[in-house]
Amino acid sequence: MHLDDRPFHVLESSQFDRPFLDYICLLTDTIRRFDKSKEGLMYLRGLLAHKRAMLYFTQPSTRTFLSFQSACHILGMPTSEIRDSSTSSERKGESIEDSLQTFSSYVDIIIMRTQVPGLCNQIANHLDNTDRPVPIINAGSGPDEHPTQALLDIYTLNRSFIRRGGIPGKTITLVGDLKRGRTVRSLSLLLANYEDIKIRFVSPKEYRIEDDLRLQLTKKGVQFEETSDFIGALDGTDAVYMTRVQDEYDANNESAAINIDNYSLKYEDLCHLKKEAVIMHPLPRRTELDTRIDKDPRAKYWRQERNGMWTRVALLTMILGVHRNIVLPDL
Amino acid sequence: MHLDDRPFHVLESSQFDRPFLDYICLLTDTIRRFDKSKEGLMYLRGLLAHKRAMLYFTQPSTRTFLSFQSACHILGMPTSEIRDSSTSSERKGESIEDSLQTFSSYVDIIIMRTQVPGLCNQIANHLDNTDRPVPIINAGSGPDEHPTQALLDIYTLNRSFIRRGGIPGKTITLVGDLKRGRTVRSLSLLLANYEDIKIRFVSPKEYRIEDDLRLQLTKKGVQFEETSDFIGALDGTDAVYMTRVQDEYDANNESAAINIDNYSLKYEDLCHLKKEAVIMHPLPRRTELDTRIDKDPRAKYWRQERNGMWTRVALLTMILGVHRNIVLPDL
Amino acid sequence: MHLDDRPFHVLESSQFDRPFLDYICLLTDTIRRFDKSKEGLMYLRGLLAHKRAMLYFTQPSTRTFLSFQSACHILGMPTSEIRDSSTSSERKGESIEDSLQTFSSYVDIIIMRTQVPGLCNQIANHLDNTDRPVPIINAGSGPDEHPTQALLDIYTLNRSFIRRGGIPGKTITLVGDLKRGRTVRSLSLLLANYEDIKIRFVSPKEYRIEDDLRLQLTKKGVQFEETSDFIGALDGTDAVYMTRVQDEYDANNESAAINIDNYSLKYEDLCHLKKEAVIMHPLPRRTELDTRIDKDPRAKYWRQERNGMWTRVALLTMILGVHRNIVLPDL
Repeated sequence: MHLDDRPFHVLESSQFDRPFLDYICLLTDTIRRFDKSKEGLMYLRGLLAHKRAMLYFTQPSTRTFLSFQSACHILGMPTSEIRDSSTSSERKGESIEDSLQTFSSYVDIIIMRTQVPGLCNQIANHLDNTDRPVPIINAGSGPDEHPTQALLDIYTLNRSFIRRGGIPGKTITLVGDLKRGRTVRSLSLLLANYEDIKIRFVSPKEYRIEDDLRLQLTKKGVQFEETSDFIGALDGTDAVYMTRVQDEYDANNESAAINIDNYSLKYEDLCHLKKEAVIMHPLPRRTELDTRIDKDPRAKYWRQERNGMWTRVALLTMILGVHRNIVLPDL
Repeated sequence: MHLDDRPFHVLESSQFDRPFLDYICLLTDTIRRFDKSKEGLMYLRGLLAHKRAMLYFTQPSTRTFLSFQSACHILGMPTSEIRDSSTSSERKGESIEDSLQTFSSYVDIIIMRTQVPGLCNQIANHLDNTDRPVPIINAGSGPDEHPTQALLDIYTLNRSFIRRGGIPGKTITLVGDLKRGRTVRSLSLLLANYEDIKIRFVSPKEYRIEDDLRLQLTKKGVQFEETSDFIGALDGTDAVYMTRVQDEYDANNESAAINIDNYSLKYEDLCHLKKEAVIMHPLPRRTELDTRIDKDPRAKYWRQERNGMWTRVALLTMILGVHRNIVLPDL
Repeated sequence: MHLDDRPFHVLESSQFDRPFLDYICLLTDTIRRFDKSKEGLMYLRGLLAHKRAMLYFTQPSTRTFLSFQSACHILGMPTSEIRDSSTSSERKGESIEDSLQTFSSYVDIIIMRTQVPGLCNQIANHLDNTDRPVPIINAGSGPDEHPTQALLDIYTLNRSFIRRGGIPGKTITLVGDLKRGRTVRSLSLLLANYEDIKIRFVSPKEYRIEDDLRLQLTKKGVQFEETSDFIGALDGTDAVYMTRVQDEYDANNESAAINIDNYSLKYEDLCHLKKEAVIMHPLPRRTELDTRIDKDPRAKYWRQERNGMWTRVALLTMILGVHRNIVLPDL
């Protein structure tokens, strides 16, 4: 956690350590208890009603956009948005630093999603050197980082295992396009913060994890294995995390050649999963996750999505310094 | 009115019966009295300040969009919006059910306008089978249904005739493109809820009402006649409801061949109308309604538009269950 | 100031007289003191929480849009927006008067930015003749008027010279595209309200001020000179106001032929400026204002931008009649 005078930027998932993760999971649980009553919700809506947020989303993303916007609304913060840089001053030849510094004049926090790796860091550094630094949240930067997705995944795992000793000791199976899915990368590195984690990476050979992730996990002492045997990997798994093929990053439509069917979870496959296992997916999904599974009690992906909104509420209270005010109401 | 556990969806105008119509007209009148003072408006703004609404408008509609958005704002509900499905997850191959279920994770009500007949029903049914059903309002579905337009029309008629015994016994003349205008269809069916209504349908022969509407009106015992004599039909009319040619549904620009001039209300035609008649139009208009009429006291279309916002306010309070809390303030 | 029954429209900078300018500068200073605490900000947020604003911005402008939207948010007003007239009813053949009258049904104030000179006046006149006139703010009308930009410039000058006797007696140097920049035109006419002002216009000969501005300044008795010697003009200047080439109004890319470099402020030029001078720019900038100057204490353009938001807050309170309620909180 940042304790110096610099604003609390959220730029990459590696900045979350175990005390931070434990704290935000507890804070999110606490905040959700306010969702039970109008009084509770009105209390939350007063917390940041004196602040304003900007959503700068030049990479299309309905889901993350709405999740953050709803989190702001829950806390009473009005939002402004840029979703199409073509309506912007950039057309008049303005630099990206000047554009973002302009936004920082009007709001108290900027939530950014762009296609450009490293842009959030660059803007955070630039604003830190102005009269009016405001915190930046990276809401996804191309194939690079998506730290709040990793947070909500950890929260969902933590909540799912709350009566089974939490995340430590669990076997997590990550399936699909492990090469280009930033979700998988961030999540597996965050899992390294928990004791005795076992990770199983399941993918076609074309989509295996990258060397540097392999190296980092080894250095952190995480037990992991790589396989292309999906059904075999389900055995003994506590959480199976499905992902889709990220073909928007295809250079030559190379994804089409791969049979993703062997890495899809069908309703018929559920028998291979433990009764208390959980099924996750960052969504959107295509065919890799059978819609007939939605009604199975192990399916947690729709809750995972809603968890995203609540972890973002918790994160915003921390960044803007009101988290210590949160006391449970008489319900 | 829906009394079971299913959310109160508003999908088609046929779900509104006479007790519902009477109730919402009275509720709207009550709510409008809060518009007279800051205290009244602040009371309204507190009613749903703990809720959030989504406006999913993939068919362009400025008027209905702003009317609903303003209604949400009056009740204190922050709104999120999708207006262009190309910025959405649908680009990543997500199904429409998954997209809408995602939105339902973040908000408490979804207001939908689409080009696809039946889509609102399909989504309402899908969400009813999830852990988090939220109410759906159909804000117009292509050439199909537009139930809240019909509501505001009924409210406007009711209010216009408040000192003349209400809607029963009145003669209502509907003019223009009666074939493709969903407004006309919904309104005439709702009018069947009132006693001794006489409807006059005035159109060129190419735009006459469809057989099934004719059949339904006959079955309900509504007196109606069809004519192409516009001026003749004005005689004895209590309300004349003008509509525009819906040429956005033209397959081959066939509208161009028809002389709509004979079905246009000119300033000079006002002499054929009773002194206490009312003139309505769902707007937008083109040449079928002379702007010089705007200043005539019988012109109610601008009030009709504002009535739309207030009936939507009333509807939202009913759907979200706070209508029984509405008590008049000391003014 | 408008005292009659007509709504208080803000259409052109010539409507601001000296008492108005003095009042709004003081009001803005007063309002900014509420920005120091959550209590102060919550007080502001209650001032117009019963009103709704519409931002009708069919000419792209991120900066002015966000500044106004944030001003509305500070005062608790929810905003609706039109940013692309192609999603609008105009597609259905509606007149611009009908479109804006529709918006006036739903909101309490309309803030307009368009490419069409005179459109704001036309709409204000039209609405004044309806049952529901609402105030119009001109937020920029093509090459024509941008009165709130002129206001924020005056406020910034006034604040910068607060300990040096205010604006009277100062020498203001305006640099760049003086022919097409509406900012320069409006600001120099407003400066005529102050005693003993000296204006220096610095531009290439192709971009000199227009004859009618020259005439008006002469008639008002303002001392001014025109020159192409940029560095020479800095001598003794109290404020240097840089502007960019408005090449969006180029008919044949004629701007490309002009070397704007001679009318650019470089870091090395700062030695020619007085220690207590101020540097302004309406932003966005290109190369005409060196980014290395940003850290110089004389650079006021980022504050100028934030001042824009606060003067708009003050203006909104005046237009909507709550400015007299503003009393300083116990801080």
